[in-house]
Amino acid sequence: MPKPRARNAVYAQSGGVTAVINASACGVIEAARRHRSHINRLYAGRDGIVGILTEDLIDVAAEAPATIRGLRHTPAGAFGSARFKLKGLEQNRAEYERLIDVFRAHDIGYFFYNGGNDSMDTAHKVAQIGTELGYPIACIGIPKTVDNDLPHTDCCPGFGSVAKYIAISTLEGALDVASMARTSTKVFVLEVMGRHAGWIAAAGGLAGRKRGEPPHIILFPEIAFERELFLERVRQCVADFGYCVIVVSEGAKYPDGKFLAEAGTKDAFGHTQLGGVGPVVANMVREALGFKFHWAVADYLQRAARHIASRVDVEQAYAVGRAAVDYAVQGQHGVMPAIKRLSSKPYRWKIVPVPLAAVANVEKTVPRNFITPDGFGITAACRRYLEPLIGGEDYPPYANGLPRYVRLRGRGVRRKLPGGYSLK
Amino acid sequence: MPKPRARNAVYAQSGGVTAVINASACGVIEAARRHRSHINRLYAGRDGIVGILTEDLIDVAAEAPATIRGLRHTPAGAFGSARFKLKGLEQNRAEYERLIDVFRAHDIGYFFYNGGNDSMDTAHKVAQIGTELGYPIACIGIPKTVDNDLPHTDCCPGFGSVAKYIAISTLEGALDVASMARTSTKVFVLEVMGRHAGWIAAAGGLAGRKRGEPPHIILFPEIAFERELFLERVRQCVADFGYCVIVVSEGAKYPDGKFLAEAGTKDAFGHTQLGGVGPVVANMVREALGFKFHWAVADYLQRAARHIASRVDVEQAYAVGRAAVDYAVQGQHGVMPAIKRLSSKPYRWKIVPVPLAAVANVEKTVPRNFITPDGFGITAACRRYLEPLIGGEDYPPYANGLPRYVRLRGRGVRRKLPGGYSLK
Repeated sequence: MPKPRARNAVYAQSGGVTAVINASACGVIEAARRHRSHINRLYAGRDGIVGILTEDLIDVAAEAPATIRGLRHTPAGAFGSARFKLKGLEQNRAEYERLIDVFRAHDIGYFFYNGGNDSMDTAHKVAQIGTELGYPIACIGIPKTVDNDLPHTDCCPGFGSVAKYIAISTLEGALDVASMARTSTKVFVLEVMGRHAGWIAAAGGLAGRKRGEPPHIILFPEIAFERELFLERVRQCVADFGYCVIVVSEGAKYPDGKFLAEAGTKDAFGHTQLGGVGPVVANMVREALGFKFHWAVADYLQRAARHIASRVDVEQAYAVGRAAVDYAVQGQHGVMPAIKRLSSKPYRWKIVPVPLAAVANVEKTVPRNFITPDGFGITAACRRYLEPLIGGEDYPPYANGLPRYVRLRGRGVRRKLPGGYSLK
Repeated sequence: MPKPRARNAVYAQSGGVTAVINASACGVIEAARRHRSHINRLYAGRDGIVGILTEDLIDVAAEAPATIRGLRHTPAGAFGSARFKLKGLEQNRAEYERLIDVFRAHDIGYFFYNGGNDSMDTAHKVAQIGTELGYPIACIGIPKTVDNDLPHTDCCPGFGSVAKYIAISTLEGALDVASMARTSTKVFVLEVMGRHAGWIAAAGGLAGRKRGEPPHIILFPEIAFERELFLERVRQCVADFGYCVIVVSEGAKYPDGKFLAEAGTKDAFGHTQLGGVGPVVANMVREALGFKFHWAVADYLQRAARHIASRVDVEQAYAVGRAAVDYAVQGQHGVMPAIKRLSSKPYRWKIVPVPLAAVANVEKTVPRNFITPDGFGITAACRRYLEPLIGGEDYPPYANGLPRYVRLRGRGVRRKLPGGYSLK
């Protein structure tokens, strides 16, 4: 039997970055090096899919092995990521054809796309169009999203670390407020990410175990916000405990579907850009109840907080990257390595392939039985689910008081296609 | 020579809490246990000076030694702190007399007051009035403030940890923005504490070493904010580097002294901006230059972030607590243990006593030679000063993914004075 010819591979990061997306990159790169008979050279799109469309590829082989190892403890997108959603096949078939042109020019046989919902959809479409155009390509999606909203996987790499950061921040901020509530701030509001799914907000709930322990109120996107109910709960908390800690999701909305914080601007995908629900809620409390308040908005700090990453999350991020390559060289395509939970205590898991078609454009929100009947807290079932995901610490190395995060050389691959390409 | 009679002591926490104020408490308590011949029982004011005035004292001896050891790694004020400034002696002499009454009732010979500027002033006044009233008491101030604005000490315990947190957060947030700037956010604003002194903002500057490395702009309270100059710098940064990271102090102000945060700007709906200099600056950039932006407000998270405390800061916080007791039993009073820098590389320091009278009500701001001529960055001299203060990590123990912060039993001391006391 003739040995299959080795082909090249391309890896790209997509969408909002996380504390551990580079750990997935590290898994891809280290696995590819073990499969030389299948994967010849590994390239990466500079700034994600944008780099592939513009034939701006990074030569991964030019990076030192120590740099590649360092990706495991370096947050954000070392190769550059992009908020760039390919349009539907009908609307812009040319974009997909351009991808195939670039792949063909560089003899790309494997495409590893590391992203969330939209990216799984893109990877799925690229696989389809490749086949149609007579250029079959093994497309593997690698899950990544702090939003934790991909289906058919126990969790999404990136989420465990933001969950750990938010749980710890809630705990620490609450200790601060508790120690001074008698003469100072009575209400503390922490705004967290999560546009449609309240997983990150739910993670704030891990900070408290017993009744009365903060956070006292969580505002989920999944639960319609009822102003009077909320204010009454705040009043009661301050009366009972002397203070009130609130974790609010950026996606919290009124019963009519309107976000509490509507910035009015839209992002590249046409989604409304949020941010600022923390001060909105804090001011609502002050106006209605008069309590002295403080609010914090963690914003990017939460998803880049590699300094306090979850060890489980780092291990899973690396594992899905490695599995993506293993699947590809085994001849699988159109799949995503997913995490399957085998047990919660102790937490045991394995990686299994799921079809991209089943993952693309399906959003997993927090189920109702994970939220207490009053809508303001998490249940024991939710805690059983979440707790293992923040397990363990995985500290980066330090020098002069700061983490030693690596930077890539980022040497470009020589272009093969004539002319340039303008992004639509 | 007759052995001096052992007296009781009281410890109180004051003002905004920090990640390491409990490490100072730990130093006080463990040192007091080594000086039984001088210090009989150690009490703490519940919620600081408020607990002393209301004769609501915590019996420290009722806490398990493991809990006391755990204070070293537990943030915020375990005994409760207070924003409660005693009035001047002329305006409310009765408050000071009440303190002496409580001290007399409980045979208190030593008063350890752990706080910032106001607290050093209070400790100083208590010492004076005690002498006047024929109840001499050894008053020792223990420095604590994230603002780092006390004079006659190299730094203030609490600052090193918030500096480390802000430097790391700036680094991590900047990596996030850098990886996505091509298609997404171009300007990231991080708001930090420091109403009058820009030390915390300066610490953000540690994140970058070379030209072009973020943060690109720091806005100090010490430098009058010039809108046009600032906007031009933002525009230039985005042109040169593709993005711009801004660290802004909550105390940044216009040349006329008005805080940016109080500028009274209105949002698109005509509502007054909801406070927070971070969003004010971000919106200013968007309106003038149109860049997509994100902003974060760390608020209490920064001063409670024990999970990433500076080891140097923890050691200094413990050392000033221990020294306070050592000084007291040596017969010193009216002093504050201060940190004296012996060398920067390697960082060596020792504890020395300074008179409370010299510390009270003096505010140390960032000197002009620590800020670059353009007013937007830190100089090499500033870096030499700051870098040692964030040196080393001192991780708390973890269980189930969260730090194991201790909580006190907080058993009260039996009251000895008749009737109650109403706070003025």
